[in-house]
Amino acid sequence: MVRAAMLDTHSPTTLIATMAARARDAARWLARSTDAQKAAALVAAADAIRAAAPAIIAANAADLARASANGLSGALLDRLRLDGPRIAAMADGIAAVAALADPVGQVIDRSTRPNGLMLSRVRVPIGVIGIIYESRPNVTADAAALCVRSGNAVILRGGSEAIDSNRAVHAAMVAGLELAGLPAEAVQLVPTTDRAAVGAMLAADGAIDLIIPRGGKSLVARVQAEARVPVLAHLDGINHVYVHRSADPAMAEAIVLNAKMRRTGVCGAMETLLIDRGYPAAEALLRALAATGCTVRGDAAARALLPTIDAADAADWDTEYLDAIAAVAVVDDLDGALAHIAAHGSHHTDAIVAADEGAAERFLAEVDSAIVLWNASTQFADGGEFGLGAEIGIATGRLHARGPVALEGLTTYKWLGHGTGQVRA
Amino acid sequence: MVRAAMLDTHSPTTLIATMAARARDAARWLARSTDAQKAAALVAAADAIRAAAPAIIAANAADLARASANGLSGALLDRLRLDGPRIAAMADGIAAVAALADPVGQVIDRSTRPNGLMLSRVRVPIGVIGIIYESRPNVTADAAALCVRSGNAVILRGGSEAIDSNRAVHAAMVAGLELAGLPAEAVQLVPTTDRAAVGAMLAADGAIDLIIPRGGKSLVARVQAEARVPVLAHLDGINHVYVHRSADPAMAEAIVLNAKMRRTGVCGAMETLLIDRGYPAAEALLRALAATGCTVRGDAAARALLPTIDAADAADWDTEYLDAIAAVAVVDDLDGALAHIAAHGSHHTDAIVAADEGAAERFLAEVDSAIVLWNASTQFADGGEFGLGAEIGIATGRLHARGPVALEGLTTYKWLGHGTGQVRA
Repeated sequence: MVRAAMLDTHSPTTLIATMAARARDAARWLARSTDAQKAAALVAAADAIRAAAPAIIAANAADLARASANGLSGALLDRLRLDGPRIAAMADGIAAVAALADPVGQVIDRSTRPNGLMLSRVRVPIGVIGIIYESRPNVTADAAALCVRSGNAVILRGGSEAIDSNRAVHAAMVAGLELAGLPAEAVQLVPTTDRAAVGAMLAADGAIDLIIPRGGKSLVARVQAEARVPVLAHLDGINHVYVHRSADPAMAEAIVLNAKMRRTGVCGAMETLLIDRGYPAAEALLRALAATGCTVRGDAAARALLPTIDAADAADWDTEYLDAIAAVAVVDDLDGALAHIAAHGSHHTDAIVAADEGAAERFLAEVDSAIVLWNASTQFADGGEFGLGAEIGIATGRLHARGPVALEGLTTYKWLGHGTGQVRA
Repeated sequence: MVRAAMLDTHSPTTLIATMAARARDAARWLARSTDAQKAAALVAAADAIRAAAPAIIAANAADLARASANGLSGALLDRLRLDGPRIAAMADGIAAVAALADPVGQVIDRSTRPNGLMLSRVRVPIGVIGIIYESRPNVTADAAALCVRSGNAVILRGGSEAIDSNRAVHAAMVAGLELAGLPAEAVQLVPTTDRAAVGAMLAADGAIDLIIPRGGKSLVARVQAEARVPVLAHLDGINHVYVHRSADPAMAEAIVLNAKMRRTGVCGAMETLLIDRGYPAAEALLRALAATGCTVRGDAAARALLPTIDAADAADWDTEYLDAIAAVAVVDDLDGALAHIAAHGSHHTDAIVAADEGAAERFLAEVDSAIVLWNASTQFADGGEFGLGAEIGIATGRLHARGPVALEGLTTYKWLGHGTGQVRA
């Protein structure tokens, strides 16, 4: 395997065009590779990362020292930090992706036309995927593994604060892939921290087939606003739990508390609780939520139920707190809940708690979100929980893939026709 | 059903935002409607168009008179013309779409998680679709029917030269839909011929979910270059037929002549013929192609086979003629054909003629096009020929839908979870 030639980092546009052209060649190679080749390459990459742990920790120390000197806060430093267990988890994650079923080559459907032409739709890799992420260096390994497993070449652009860690993880991973015979250009890391390289990736329509941002809201918003390349992402997870009048109180309390408080910083966390005016145990529910330490901000009707909670203002209904804060509105009925979600939801994950099957079925049918749940916590919004294996992200757009995006979402299909000389009349 | 309130056409952005908001409401209505309701509404729309034939012909006469006065050519006038048979065909087309199976509600897959949570992926409409088209007024009916059948609201923006015809077709169609109880806002026609309305549609990210251009290359190119909204389209159909050395000469001749000459103006027509250096009947194939009246432009090796053909220059390999012209290159072998297609193809439709199954399977696997055929004419690239029913277009992008896009391509999915109180650990 020929080592990548030097990259000219002077012009971000030229840099990305060069990387994308190499990625396209690698993608052609990957599209021809077998399930076993891709799996073996990822196992080799996982081994290489384990073996490179001392080098990765040393590189990470340089990032951490720079970040400390730049005054980064404790939480951000923790995101950036790699240690033995985290590197082992990264390698295990790659090995777990290696063990997932390969979606490429799956026949989606097949038919034989009256003229004998046999048509089939077969899953194929998308091609060249760009991942734009922030300070967590483990994304370098996670995202690359998912792309390679599904036969895609990937261009990674991590945060500047993690550049040394990302380089070390990338170098180890590529060494492993090459050992297994994959081209180094299957997984490329943008070598510069120049922010213009992100702009060049977003503008590379036709050269990069799909961009997936992994990070905070400002990153996702920039990517969605600027990209000429299709994007899979979610900006907000303003998720609702609607407690219908028919809900079992114990179930409602368990689901609401889990949806809000299990982890408050995940995109599947509940942000707004909608309580049906006819739900008999509303006050107890609010007391239980407040008793967890959650700040509860209610509308007038909710505060009438429990005056000790805070008052919500208009902005609360459109806010993703990602914190131990919940907005609470009392709605007249199912239609009120549907209208609230249609007005304020972010098409991510919404749930109803109800014993009434008719109400639940209407909620499932009419809420226009990627994931709609009946009698289950919104915190299940996760590719692993859905049985998909590791996910590359959750998408709230309406095209291509919706909800948790795992290997299948990183593929497309082509139509294959097997004929015996058919011509069209 | 309340009639649409007056639209302010002064600001294109406000106009499109207002139309899109009404379409979103209608889309919510359509998403709840049943298969039978949608089918009945389209049957009513077809009937209404048949009944309105005199009014449509009168409106069309105004367009034709204006077009003649503006010096439109015969072919363009013919595209614009509606007469009794064409209106009947339009109505029949709507009725045929009504008879297609509804993709909405189909369960793509289903699983039960170890905790008992039952997950399913269910097809749902995309939402609000924008169709931007040119002078053929039948697109008004065809595109609207496909969108309504799949539960989507549609905003139609036809060419200014067909505005009177489009208004008449649209009015009849909406009258039929309303008779069947559908909201008028399910199918809206942009009421102005202001070209800025197209720009406003292309910029309406989040309000319009998908744009499909229907028309010539300059329209598609503008849409692809400007759109912030996702686009399904194909710009070029630079389609190849590769005649492998193992091809049966009679089959090769039949397929090449059909692929090029059956209809030269369709996007599935062959534009470039690649002949394997080892194919023994190359000269006869070139003679047969030239004998159909096709202008043949060959590389040096092709002209060595048949000196009477024209010389191709570099631009020929990247040209979609849509005419009785074919470029011909002699390639060394399968790898040469794959390299030529990778360099010059447009990811639309490519075919191999071969008796050698190994060569054919490599071609099918490695050509990165929406449709790849073995021993069949490229002119089959058509939703009807694929058994999909009427198509809204052919897409050469890699995301969402690829190849002929029919009803299924106008849907997305959501994840539904049926639980019994599950919370996440």
